[in-house]
Amino acid sequence: MDEKRYQRKIYLEDKPRAEALREILDYASLSPETELIPISDALGRITAEPIFANVSMPHYHASAMDGIAVNAEETYEAHEQRPLHLKKGEQFVYVDTGNAIPQHFNAVIMIENVQILDNNTIEIIEPATPWQHIRPIGEDIVQEEMLFPQGHQLRPADLGALLAAQITMVPVAKKPLVTIIPTGNELIQADASLAAGKIIEFNGTVFANYIKEWGGNPDLKEIVRDEPENIKKALIDAVETSDIVVINAGSSAGSKDYTVHILAELGTVFTHGVATRPGKPVILGEINGKIVVGVPGYPVSAYLALEWFVRPLVCQYLQVPVPKRQTLQVKLGRRIVSTMGAEDFIRMNIGYVNGQFIANPLTRAAGVTMSLVRADGLLVIPPELLGYEQGDTVEIELLRPLEEIKSAIVFSGSHDLTIDLLSSQLKRERTDMKIVSSHVGSMAGVMAIRKGEAHVAGIHLLDPETKEYNVSYVKKLLAGQEVVLYPFLKRTQGWIVPKGNPLEVTGVAELAQTQADYANRQKGAGTRILFDLLLKEQGLTPEQINGYDREMFSHLSVAAEVKGNERAVGLGIYPAAKAMNLEFIPVADESYDLLMTKAFFESDKGRWLQTVIQSDAFKAEVDKIGGYKVVSQAEPVFL
Amino acid sequence: MDEKRYQRKIYLEDKPRAEALREILDYASLSPETELIPISDALGRITAEPIFANVSMPHYHASAMDGIAVNAEETYEAHEQRPLHLKKGEQFVYVDTGNAIPQHFNAVIMIENVQILDNNTIEIIEPATPWQHIRPIGEDIVQEEMLFPQGHQLRPADLGALLAAQITMVPVAKKPLVTIIPTGNELIQADASLAAGKIIEFNGTVFANYIKEWGGNPDLKEIVRDEPENIKKALIDAVETSDIVVINAGSSAGSKDYTVHILAELGTVFTHGVATRPGKPVILGEINGKIVVGVPGYPVSAYLALEWFVRPLVCQYLQVPVPKRQTLQVKLGRRIVSTMGAEDFIRMNIGYVNGQFIANPLTRAAGVTMSLVRADGLLVIPPELLGYEQGDTVEIELLRPLEEIKSAIVFSGSHDLTIDLLSSQLKRERTDMKIVSSHVGSMAGVMAIRKGEAHVAGIHLLDPETKEYNVSYVKKLLAGQEVVLYPFLKRTQGWIVPKGNPLEVTGVAELAQTQADYANRQKGAGTRILFDLLLKEQGLTPEQINGYDREMFSHLSVAAEVKGNERAVGLGIYPAAKAMNLEFIPVADESYDLLMTKAFFESDKGRWLQTVIQSDAFKAEVDKIGGYKVVSQAEPVFL
Repeated sequence: MDEKRYQRKIYLEDKPRAEALREILDYASLSPETELIPISDALGRITAEPIFANVSMPHYHASAMDGIAVNAEETYEAHEQRPLHLKKGEQFVYVDTGNAIPQHFNAVIMIENVQILDNNTIEIIEPATPWQHIRPIGEDIVQEEMLFPQGHQLRPADLGALLAAQITMVPVAKKPLVTIIPTGNELIQADASLAAGKIIEFNGTVFANYIKEWGGNPDLKEIVRDEPENIKKALIDAVETSDIVVINAGSSAGSKDYTVHILAELGTVFTHGVATRPGKPVILGEINGKIVVGVPGYPVSAYLALEWFVRPLVCQYLQVPVPKRQTLQVKLGRRIVSTMGAEDFIRMNIGYVNGQFIANPLTRAAGVTMSLVRADGLLVIPPELLGYEQGDTVEIELLRPLEEIKSAIVFSGSHDLTIDLLSSQLKRERTDMKIVSSHVGSMAGVMAIRKGEAHVAGIHLLDPETKEYNVSYVKKLLAGQEVVLYPFLKRTQGWIVPKGNPLEVTGVAELAQTQADYANRQKGAGTRILFDLLLKEQGLTPEQINGYDREMFSHLSVAAEVKGNERAVGLGIYPAAKAMNLEFIPVADESYDLLMTKAFFESDKGRWLQTVIQSDAFKAEVDKIGGYKVVSQAEPVFL
Repeated sequence: MDEKRYQRKIYLEDKPRAEALREILDYASLSPETELIPISDALGRITAEPIFANVSMPHYHASAMDGIAVNAEETYEAHEQRPLHLKKGEQFVYVDTGNAIPQHFNAVIMIENVQILDNNTIEIIEPATPWQHIRPIGEDIVQEEMLFPQGHQLRPADLGALLAAQITMVPVAKKPLVTIIPTGNELIQADASLAAGKIIEFNGTVFANYIKEWGGNPDLKEIVRDEPENIKKALIDAVETSDIVVINAGSSAGSKDYTVHILAELGTVFTHGVATRPGKPVILGEINGKIVVGVPGYPVSAYLALEWFVRPLVCQYLQVPVPKRQTLQVKLGRRIVSTMGAEDFIRMNIGYVNGQFIANPLTRAAGVTMSLVRADGLLVIPPELLGYEQGDTVEIELLRPLEEIKSAIVFSGSHDLTIDLLSSQLKRERTDMKIVSSHVGSMAGVMAIRKGEAHVAGIHLLDPETKEYNVSYVKKLLAGQEVVLYPFLKRTQGWIVPKGNPLEVTGVAELAQTQADYANRQKGAGTRILFDLLLKEQGLTPEQINGYDREMFSHLSVAAEVKGNERAVGLGIYPAAKAMNLEFIPVADESYDLLMTKAFFESDKGRWLQTVIQSDAFKAEVDKIGGYKVVSQAEPVFL
């Protein structure tokens, strides 16, 4: 290994994002090519030029009713007291809706108002006015009128209008070809077998699908290994065929970050580093007049960089504006700190509780894909601000339809695997409802109810004095608030250990003795409170436990930590051990209850939730996991 | 022709829409079939079951930085005053971002904080804390955690999460197959040649594309002729293969409306007629357990019926809620009358003028496709209301993104073909701007400015006294308002007559003499005012002009009316005659000016509009049409 490479230091710029974008948009001479396509393929495509009607619609004077066509002047005498007879052929003809009105006729009388006397004669008792019940030529579309300007995205009804105007082929902007080059020695395809140090390549698929959604034509290439020659060749090939090139990873200033050097050699580097967090290590440049965007490897940074720079390029090519997201005013549940001089992009959860939108930041780690999946919105903090205080009202860009956010049941508190089942079962019954849960631990769950940030919290808090669960905590922490404690589950906590229990752990004593790697839970988690009580009972201190200070945020995380480490031990619930094929040694049975505001408990959503919990279908699902008992005929405690 | 058929009378029901929908949703035992598809095809698809992670991400403790992996305990002594040396291999190893942390190491020090002494030794001056710069196993995704519940529509970032969790095939709800059967003797394909009485079939294409957008799999069949046996066969075949069947036209109670009888014969009719305007003649029924929806032939009714009944069926099949549209509070520019006892669905234009959303109804004719194309929103008036008054605030469902409505320049007044060119040219310069125009005539345009319903109005109003254009009207009608009259075009009005001018028209006198079919314009149109002046000058009255009472709403409509009628004459502008290949006999030159509010004139949008008008590119486009002169160096008149 050549260590010299570590000595080279490049510092990234902190260029304002808008300025970096302006430069590439000004440089890019992306003007769309036009292609003529059949209407059947045109949904969602963008018109490349104004479209004018080929024919009028209707293209003849058409009857708007089933009835008879007449000459209005010849009906003026008709009156209830003085019925008028008309002769077929000369004085009237039968017409159906859509039939052409023969010349010399200029009105239609509805069949309901016609008395048929014989095969050739009818009677009417009311005159017609000229042009009644006739759709004149061009009522809908007039030949040569402009149906759509250029830059219009075609919707289903638009396709109907085109056909009606006898346009069967429509000129649309060709989709810009965006080549995506994933690079990295550590990357493998998702179907390859995993080994430590190997990472599944998935950014490319994410990019390709965003580009598809934005109206581009993505071309996802094979993974390129981190060798300058490989990358150079891939870039030269890509600019040859594509309109825009995206190269993933290698955009920072590390030892294997070759992109910026290659770009400087083959073309021009406009920008290396933008004043944003995350997403700073972006490269913008050109080779042979084609824009090349180098995006960071971490998925969140990568996504943001793609949206900041590639989306506007695609839109410029298509000559459409970059769509703006719906925004929402929300109240911040926590203080948020931001870097001075850089824009901060923070993924947020939004809960709609007690008629208020409350937003909390998700993890800010740029490597956490699930934070994009879970985010309801994006908070953009401008460079000149240092952040916001708890309780501030801020504007958030929505990443999900508002309706979906408003209808979600916000679940907080302790993690239990049955909550996912509950969420699924609820959605099966009511497609417009879902549970959005965050795993923050029992104590934080109680606090979320107190602050009005959640509808429901799952809690299992053991009182060391009374040895009872939950009630004393709620009484103390939520005094004066109207809440309900709904008995939900009995479940078993136990030691989660590798198969065969190599350290022969049966209690905390062995943990200390063997200096096992203990996988602890976060402060405020019910399981941690239980562990602390076990320690205390044995007269042990946290310092005697190896790993006590590191925190896992869920039972599954604990099990994942135990898996693959022969010296590891965790405390958690049975299904987590089972899911990871680990051994489980029972320690204690506990009550996992649902804490709800009384308002939610009595609401439509709250009642549905209880119905689903008490349903046979849900209980059967829970039984399948094992280690649980749903409390039947639960008697809620009003506090 | 058998006239007996006209004597049969069926009356449609007026069933509440919600009740009709409930019945079919309850009947339809649509449960989705699941299909397993690769991630690369999964964008926009709906998960059929909860998806759990196959592996953790990261699946090993990974370095989050380029640097060295160390054992934190071995670095505690390091201090600026007391640098610590570490030996390669035993005490540290080099790691790049993403590399696995070897066992016995538990922290990473960034390369920037490492001083390399020789190939085997480095120096640090600061201790590491345990687990710093390490991404622990499952930081992003924990094996066996639920990534998505069922009923989740997969977005690009979601596909990344699936791949990261090593899921390469995903179970999704199969798209319901919706067969669409167009029926009618009058229907032809868009590429067939037109004849009076023949109508281009386009509803089927509209339906197919909506169903595609909603997540269904449309199967558009060939046109079926109006014969009971044909329709019966088509229905029997369709229910065999599909999940839902849509049959278009023949849903009313006319002579050739066979659908309801066939449905009763083959299966069950649940509903014939719903209490809505338009859209009343809907049929809901089933054959062999498959829901059949009969929708009316008029395109607007057809679209509404599809959305009311077919969309919820598709969503029920996919187990997703029917998405709700964004709504907007608007002020009504006009009084709107509604039928008691029926829901009214009114297509609306929305203009954002002077910081206010003003909405006006488009035509209510169910046959006008372009009203769907042009609509910004839908006003739903409940059955118990008789309508709304002008100035009322009502809630509208948006059919277009709010952003697009807010950014539009609302153009009112007289119709001129150059306005379309102007709109196109403006969009070419600024993709986020467009002109939305309604052709209401010059006088109505002045009124729209007065009522704050438009930004700009095109007017050409001849003062019979002064023989001057526009100024006197504006002074009189907009006294006290700050407006600007921007000189835009000089153009020529003339007689539009069939090729060869068969009636030898040169003035109004011949019109009266020959009893020509005159195609008149609507009241308040500048062209009508000109015509009335010509009549008056010749001492003629409207009664002497054949066709005076029928109103056309644009120059093109007048030309379309003249085309194909040898006895027709219109008054209009040269390009309309040219577009339809008609003859043009000049009558008068006139000023077509743009009336704007002063606020708009001085706004960013207003300035862009003037820039585009004065651009060489726009003038060149106008010159191509002929018959126009754009006023150069226009001197706006402030009034």
